[in-house]
Amino acid sequence: MREVTLMRNVLSHAPGSCEVAFGNTRVLCVATIAEDVPGWLRGTGKGWVTAEYAMLPGSTRGRTPRERRGAKGRTSEIERLIGRSLRSIVDLGELGGEVTVTLDCDVIVADGGTRTAAITGAYVALVDALRFWKTAAKIRTLPLSGQVAAVSVGIVDGEVVADLDFSQDVRAEVDMNVVMDDAGRFIEVQGTAEGHPFSAEQLQAMLDSARVEIEALVTLQKETLEL
Amino acid sequence: MREVTLMRNVLSHAPGSCEVAFGNTRVLCVATIAEDVPGWLRGTGKGWVTAEYAMLPGSTRGRTPRERRGAKGRTSEIERLIGRSLRSIVDLGELGGEVTVTLDCDVIVADGGTRTAAITGAYVALVDALRFWKTAAKIRTLPLSGQVAAVSVGIVDGEVVADLDFSQDVRAEVDMNVVMDDAGRFIEVQGTAEGHPFSAEQLQAMLDSARVEIEALVTLQKETLEL
Amino acid sequence: MREVTLMRNVLSHAPGSCEVAFGNTRVLCVATIAEDVPGWLRGTGKGWVTAEYAMLPGSTRGRTPRERRGAKGRTSEIERLIGRSLRSIVDLGELGGEVTVTLDCDVIVADGGTRTAAITGAYVALVDALRFWKTAAKIRTLPLSGQVAAVSVGIVDGEVVADLDFSQDVRAEVDMNVVMDDAGRFIEVQGTAEGHPFSAEQLQAMLDSARVEIEALVTLQKETLEL
Amino acid sequence: MREVTLMRNVLSHAPGSCEVAFGNTRVLCVATIAEDVPGWLRGTGKGWVTAEYAMLPGSTRGRTPRERRGAKGRTSEIERLIGRSLRSIVDLGELGGEVTVTLDCDVIVADGGTRTAAITGAYVALVDALRFWKTAAKIRTLPLSGQVAAVSVGIVDGEVVADLDFSQDVRAEVDMNVVMDDAGRFIEVQGTAEGHPFSAEQLQAMLDSARVEIEALVTLQKETLEL
Amino acid sequence: MREVTLMRNVLSHAPGSCEVAFGNTRVLCVATIAEDVPGWLRGTGKGWVTAEYAMLPGSTRGRTPRERRGAKGRTSEIERLIGRSLRSIVDLGELGGEVTVTLDCDVIVADGGTRTAAITGAYVALVDALRFWKTAAKIRTLPLSGQVAAVSVGIVDGEVVADLDFSQDVRAEVDMNVVMDDAGRFIEVQGTAEGHPFSAEQLQAMLDSARVEIEALVTLQKETLEL
Amino acid sequence: MREVTLMRNVLSHAPGSCEVAFGNTRVLCVATIAEDVPGWLRGTGKGWVTAEYAMLPGSTRGRTPRERRGAKGRTSEIERLIGRSLRSIVDLGELGGEVTVTLDCDVIVADGGTRTAAITGAYVALVDALRFWKTAAKIRTLPLSGQVAAVSVGIVDGEVVADLDFSQDVRAEVDMNVVMDDAGRFIEVQGTAEGHPFSAEQLQAMLDSARVEIEALVTLQKETLEL
Repeated sequence: MREVTLMRNVLSHAPGSCEVAFGNTRVLCVATIAEDVPGWLRGTGKGWVTAEYAMLPGSTRGRTPRERRGAKGRTSEIERLIGRSLRSIVDLGELGGEVTVTLDCDVIVADGGTRTAAITGAYVALVDALRFWKTAAKIRTLPLSGQVAAVSVGIVDGEVVADLDFSQDVRAEVDMNVVMDDAGRFIEVQGTAEGHPFSAEQLQAMLDSARVEIEALVTLQKETLEL
Repeated sequence: MREVTLMRNVLSHAPGSCEVAFGNTRVLCVATIAEDVPGWLRGTGKGWVTAEYAMLPGSTRGRTPRERRGAKGRTSEIERLIGRSLRSIVDLGELGGEVTVTLDCDVIVADGGTRTAAITGAYVALVDALRFWKTAAKIRTLPLSGQVAAVSVGIVDGEVVADLDFSQDVRAEVDMNVVMDDAGRFIEVQGTAEGHPFSAEQLQAMLDSARVEIEALVTLQKETLEL
Repeated sequence: MREVTLMRNVLSHAPGSCEVAFGNTRVLCVATIAEDVPGWLRGTGKGWVTAEYAMLPGSTRGRTPRERRGAKGRTSEIERLIGRSLRSIVDLGELGGEVTVTLDCDVIVADGGTRTAAITGAYVALVDALRFWKTAAKIRTLPLSGQVAAVSVGIVDGEVVADLDFSQDVRAEVDMNVVMDDAGRFIEVQGTAEGHPFSAEQLQAMLDSARVEIEALVTLQKETLEL
Repeated sequence: MREVTLMRNVLSHAPGSCEVAFGNTRVLCVATIAEDVPGWLRGTGKGWVTAEYAMLPGSTRGRTPRERRGAKGRTSEIERLIGRSLRSIVDLGELGGEVTVTLDCDVIVADGGTRTAAITGAYVALVDALRFWKTAAKIRTLPLSGQVAAVSVGIVDGEVVADLDFSQDVRAEVDMNVVMDDAGRFIEVQGTAEGHPFSAEQLQAMLDSARVEIEALVTLQKETLEL
Repeated sequence: MREVTLMRNVLSHAPGSCEVAFGNTRVLCVATIAEDVPGWLRGTGKGWVTAEYAMLPGSTRGRTPRERRGAKGRTSEIERLIGRSLRSIVDLGELGGEVTVTLDCDVIVADGGTRTAAITGAYVALVDALRFWKTAAKIRTLPLSGQVAAVSVGIVDGEVVADLDFSQDVRAEVDMNVVMDDAGRFIEVQGTAEGHPFSAEQLQAMLDSARVEIEALVTLQKETLEL
Repeated sequence: MREVTLMRNVLSHAPGSCEVAFGNTRVLCVATIAEDVPGWLRGTGKGWVTAEYAMLPGSTRGRTPRERRGAKGRTSEIERLIGRSLRSIVDLGELGGEVTVTLDCDVIVADGGTRTAAITGAYVALVDALRFWKTAAKIRTLPLSGQVAAVSVGIVDGEVVADLDFSQDVRAEVDMNVVMDDAGRFIEVQGTAEGHPFSAEQLQAMLDSARVEIEALVTLQKETLEL
């Protein structure tokens, strides 16, 4: 796996922020809390956790256009994945009322694995935002049931590889994103055969590789957050 | 698993069509072929396979609005899944040039499993459209490397269930969509913990269940298509 | 006129539905009732009846794109026509409060006359939805002042023709849509000279033809609905 | 009928323009010619005639919002009507090649009858634009097969009324727009029952009234254009 | 400077309107008052003044398309400038509550200087609308702290020119819009080097020229409004 | 003036990039070059320079929504200003053909002066991108006629202040943005009275202050770029 770094509180005015790097890939994750919820939650007393994701135009070789006419399918798919992953470890009924935590994940440099880096960094930003919320006396305890981290795995040239960079990604036969909690249980498993279908054995090997790497990420999150 | 039916050629003027039912769920799958490709494929000589998905407003209890201001995230995610799944068994270089096969999957009744029903039915429509293409002397052989079928599996009240209906879906602890080829290999695996994370054992049990059901679907496709 | 069929209650979970066929043309009409009205009616105690219309992409030779960037002019013109036609026989003040009946007309196969088929079938779906509403004790009597049915007429090769199919439609000199009630009175008359202007005599001959055909449609609606 | 005025060439830099007044209603009609056609006409050598319609925000009591998120259904319906009406008297194959004449009809004051005033005024602007085109040696003769004018008729308090103003329009039982050529033949007939259906006799009386008024409009157009 | 005319109350039904001409440039300015404010002002008791600007398609040589997919950058920039300029002389707290005055500026003929003409004419429409508001007993005094007028200045062929027409505008080296009150103070200064940067001396010469012309405009406004 | 820093080449894969800080305000400026131009320049052999600007959602206290339904008026106004400013010192005919340089300015932290910081930093990114272009043998010399830098000035509590931070900006009586070249000549001057109109003397004092600060910025750019 490529070198991973997690820099906490890179934006002094935001309640939680983390710049995460997986190799060259760099994602700025910012957590903000607003006292409102989507319409279908109003009146329930519950809060919400959601995510937005974008690639800065200059984050790729060959400028990527801004999504000013609506988010593309890929973008909303990634946003839904990040949101679901983070919600899986938050008790929405204990957010201090009808509040929404938004996790903005903006890709500064894209070199593969941006969605898994975003999930891993968003967790750090989320914890700091909730600590801020606790300091503001909106909640008494952090409504978290675990940690969440993610890694991509794939099969490249017949070999299982974890944390694929862009050059590996484009020639991978299978591309898989695995999201786990700190107890090694699955939150999301998304595997796609890019060329040929893959076997149950290959699936198992990829899941095993993901487990090892996510354990390391969970440890790094703990150190970063001084948990 | 609920009763599955595949009705071929329900639209006489379309090159391929199939109305698929998984229990109450009914999806109309239509395959059409047009002599054009997306911009990034022009000049390559290769073809393309893509999918569109929509729920008719009256397909659900409580009318679902039409997506006239752009497709929602869920919709484009499903369209991308159907498109990828079907492309995985098509040789895009052997479609008779720069042609696009579009698989339109319109949900008549939604009672859970619409995306997996759509994939299973779209395969039937695709084969008939390619047979039409061959009859029209655009290709000599069907550029297919296998069959593709899909099923949802999940954990409901602690039990593994295949082909969840809507009432099971809303209370499932884990929700998984599995797409396989006729050799029992994976094309897509997408599992989501709705409430609590799930274990490796639970994942294995769901995959095993999916395999059994997809084998039956593959057999039904064969009979329907007189393969 | 081509063979006409009206199939009631084709969707078991919707309060009213009707699949109507005028020859090859097939339209699925679904009536749903929601307890809300457009903003300008709120507080009046009155209800509303509205319609939406779409052609499934596979309904035509040469796939028709979905209208995901807003409805085209033709579409909204048809929706306005269907809505006005059905409202003309409904007492909006007697719908049981501020409720909206939506008539979704989705074209499965388009072979001419889709808008007149939609009106004729939407009436059947509407009656069943209002019966459901009565059964649910929201209203005591059906707030209907008559029946409504519609047919296209035109002049093709100098002859008056009723219920034009697509091949007749494209070479018609005049194209007219007539909506009538069961007393033979006009609800809408829309005639367009496609090539040359038409005379008062030709107009009269087309209206006479429409009257005869609509009488038959009204009788068929009565039988279908067991009125 | 209200007083009608047609002022030609109100914009010195446009090839054709006409400010038309039907009573208080005032519409600025401008005809411009551009050397391009819609995509589906390219390569045919034929031209096109199209119309756009808008109400200035200050044209109504109670400001009308601009249509900056797409034209409303009513707007596109009117644009389609104006375009069809003018095309019915133009030989599209004799416009001097693949050129588009656009008729922009902007309502300065709206007091009923804006679409019929627009058609009547657009004809004047069109003739002057074609004369300009002839002067520019793009065509040798004006490719016109007749004149076109339009009037609204309706039934108000049981009486047939022509050229309804806004106060009559809102309480009309039937609202009808009639477009005719200078030989008294029909180009468009659009009648709508606002409250109760209308009889064949009422339809006839409205058409008779429209004929008389359109004859007068045709004469006024002739005088204005010095035909 | 070109001949300037201000015609008051050109639309009898609007509370305030003014057709302004700067040479060939003609802009219809209409002021309407509605009892609502933008969301962020609700509950403050304050009113708002805003502007919308559009060019009629026929206002330019070579038809200008309508902005039906959202206003262009240039348009919103002009709207913001007109709105700010008029707000600078209105006491928003004394508009008689949470009301919005909208200044619609529609360009009939564009020959340079449309935004400065619009500001100058909008002031006249605004005063008449506020007088109407006072007559309607919504306010006791006009909440105005001064007059506002505007002119463009530039450097063409090395010379300072005021009120540039289109032919001067396209070859100007510097293009500047100056908005002043009736005491000769600045409300807006916007200068742009089109080709080469400009010196402090050139800036001063343009501002001096603008001051002279704006004094004349202020006098003309006074006469027109009988202040 | 607040402390200013210019960090060059912060993105290794982009031809030119600069992270600029004016006090707390931080903007990432990235220059990319693509071999295409806007439609109206095709066939002229000339190139183009354009800019895009966005605020990251987490750049402000109180999250700023992404502009996914089109850029707001403020955004496009800023983009137009940045684009014009940079074009003023580039010889578009000497860019090596029909190429577009895009300057993406994404605000990481917004604390006043984002547009002037963006212009100052974009110049640095532009020079490095053109150096890259020269290294790639697309051009022989850098097609630049000078430097460009910008600063905001205003009147706060009656005093002239340069480089206003957010807290000063909201209570400024006058807000002005000045763009100059390295010879102290004006490229853009945009001054707005926020509350009361301002005098010629105040304007002069602000321009003098801007000149001093821009001289310092030009010197810093030179050092950063080793000019």
